[in-house]
Amino acid sequence: MPTTDLSLEQIEQLATAVFVSNGCDERNTQALVKTVINAERDGSHSHGLFRVPGYVASLRSGKVNGKASPVVKHKTAAIITVDGDGGFAPLAIERGIPALAEAASTVGVAVMAIERAYHFAALWPETEALAERNLIGLACVCYKPVMTPAGGNKRLLGTNPISFAWPRPGNNPFVYDMATAAMALGDVEIAARDGKQLAPGVGLDASGQATTDPAEVIKGMLLPFGGYKGSAIAIMVELLAAAAINEQFSFEAADTDLDDGGPARGGEFILAISPDLLAGDGWAEHAETFFERLEAIDGVRLPGERRHKNRLSTAPRPVNSELLARVEALIG
Amino acid sequence: MPTTDLSLEQIEQLATAVFVSNGCDERNTQALVKTVINAERDGSHSHGLFRVPGYVASLRSGKVNGKASPVVKHKTAAIITVDGDGGFAPLAIERGIPALAEAASTVGVAVMAIERAYHFAALWPETEALAERNLIGLACVCYKPVMTPAGGNKRLLGTNPISFAWPRPGNNPFVYDMATAAMALGDVEIAARDGKQLAPGVGLDASGQATTDPAEVIKGMLLPFGGYKGSAIAIMVELLAAAAINEQFSFEAADTDLDDGGPARGGEFILAISPDLLAGDGWAEHAETFFERLEAIDGVRLPGERRHKNRLSTAPRPVNSELLARVEALIG
Repeated sequence: MPTTDLSLEQIEQLATAVFVSNGCDERNTQALVKTVINAERDGSHSHGLFRVPGYVASLRSGKVNGKASPVVKHKTAAIITVDGDGGFAPLAIERGIPALAEAASTVGVAVMAIERAYHFAALWPETEALAERNLIGLACVCYKPVMTPAGGNKRLLGTNPISFAWPRPGNNPFVYDMATAAMALGDVEIAARDGKQLAPGVGLDASGQATTDPAEVIKGMLLPFGGYKGSAIAIMVELLAAAAINEQFSFEAADTDLDDGGPARGGEFILAISPDLLAGDGWAEHAETFFERLEAIDGVRLPGERRHKNRLSTAPRPVNSELLARVEALIG
Repeated sequence: MPTTDLSLEQIEQLATAVFVSNGCDERNTQALVKTVINAERDGSHSHGLFRVPGYVASLRSGKVNGKASPVVKHKTAAIITVDGDGGFAPLAIERGIPALAEAASTVGVAVMAIERAYHFAALWPETEALAERNLIGLACVCYKPVMTPAGGNKRLLGTNPISFAWPRPGNNPFVYDMATAAMALGDVEIAARDGKQLAPGVGLDASGQATTDPAEVIKGMLLPFGGYKGSAIAIMVELLAAAAINEQFSFEAADTDLDDGGPARGGEFILAISPDLLAGDGWAEHAETFFERLEAIDGVRLPGERRHKNRLSTAPRPVNSELLARVEALIG
């Protein structure tokens, strides 16, 4: 695929122009641009500019409020809700994280529910933000029904990503962010765009038969990673990110969504735990004895390592040229 | 394999006689017997009488205190520790669960750390106990290093089971309890005993080569379920059940264990969340709309369903005859 090199500053200017000209106020624009920049910076292409046409579609359809002002509330000392005010999730998360971190650092554990928001990005920014405050972070979201539970052949679950971050003071956190689907839908879409085949076990076609054609999987359904066990994790995500926080299950999101190309309304479940309060002194050094052994094993790569390495580069980022043209055309 | 039918009462009498004659006091005996009975009742054979020789070995070696008196403490309103006093975990869990449930029901979320205990059983009894109190439960434990992280060929991780339970008032909870290994070690041991082959992908031999021979996997190492993603979940379990609660990683448990055939010392991480406080009214009915759709899909079976069905039977349970003889020989 032809690509065009853009500096992070150029990506920032482009994304800013797109969001402003499509009705976002300054606070929402800043939060969204940061999300896009951080994804491109880290090489997480399926969550960067690739998502911008979807964001814009939902602004233009009127589904998402580009001027949303999320409100943070405490239900208890350890239960926090953020009403997203019908906007995209990044500003809601940005406002909520300090309150969640404060609660977890005081009480030892806290949960934050993001409600009435539209999530279309990676989850690692929020779990990393907790880890940077020396907290353990766990986050998950539903989506729309694009995946069958293991054993079946009917769409019910979202790709249902889960992100976990462990703080490593003085080091990058240990962090992962992974679809509980065998492959993230964005990556399946990129494979379809680029004419690539999928590995076996990623999905089924619309008739429920196994296929390696990404276009057929998009029309059909994804499979969970790891069979019945991965399916159980994906179901836990539905329960935590929907039923536990009074937001929409993936199947409900489909029923209420406009299908404008952007994200469906949904919630996000975020858990924060203080190892200072739970384990007491010495937890970080103790954890490092484990990471040392983990990293010493041939063939083992820590998740997030590639992103953290990409992050350090100041070089221009390659952007799919066709995508770039589509994003530029969204200005004005 | 030849089996002998025993009523649950006979299993109870047998287990009681074994624990009492090997130095357990009444409270510990009751807690252990309940664990064994419930496993046999539910058809979870790898956690029932199958574990008794291991329990006894650790009592006889003096590693585990059969008269332990676990102590429950609050570090904060939402952080509870139970010092297991060097005994088996069931009594520590029995004493801690009411405090954990009370904390979660008041604050909305709480974590309990079981410390200085020897865990050798399933995790669903504790998560189900939370679900019966209308709480969401999540529990995990490390073990000894019997599994390699994905991509490697060196033992570092335990089988690292995780259990999740969702309360369904008026119904059995949705509950699963699964090794993050491709197969639980107890099941591999039973396959070796019964001369069965494993499915591909369960483990590697001592030289790091794939094998389907359970005896070779026991000498070698297990693999995580679901490749890199399952491995990431297994690593999260190490961090939560060891570093986060100041207890032993699997590799540390190996260094300190007597290898007497019983469990190594370790901790258990248990999280409880109140959907009443987090979601508010209507959460249970909302969740049922999801379970209805899940159960309606052909080929999908809810985890825990088989156990809950087995539980209803008052019929005698088939016990491996060779195992029965070995357990009977432990009395006196």
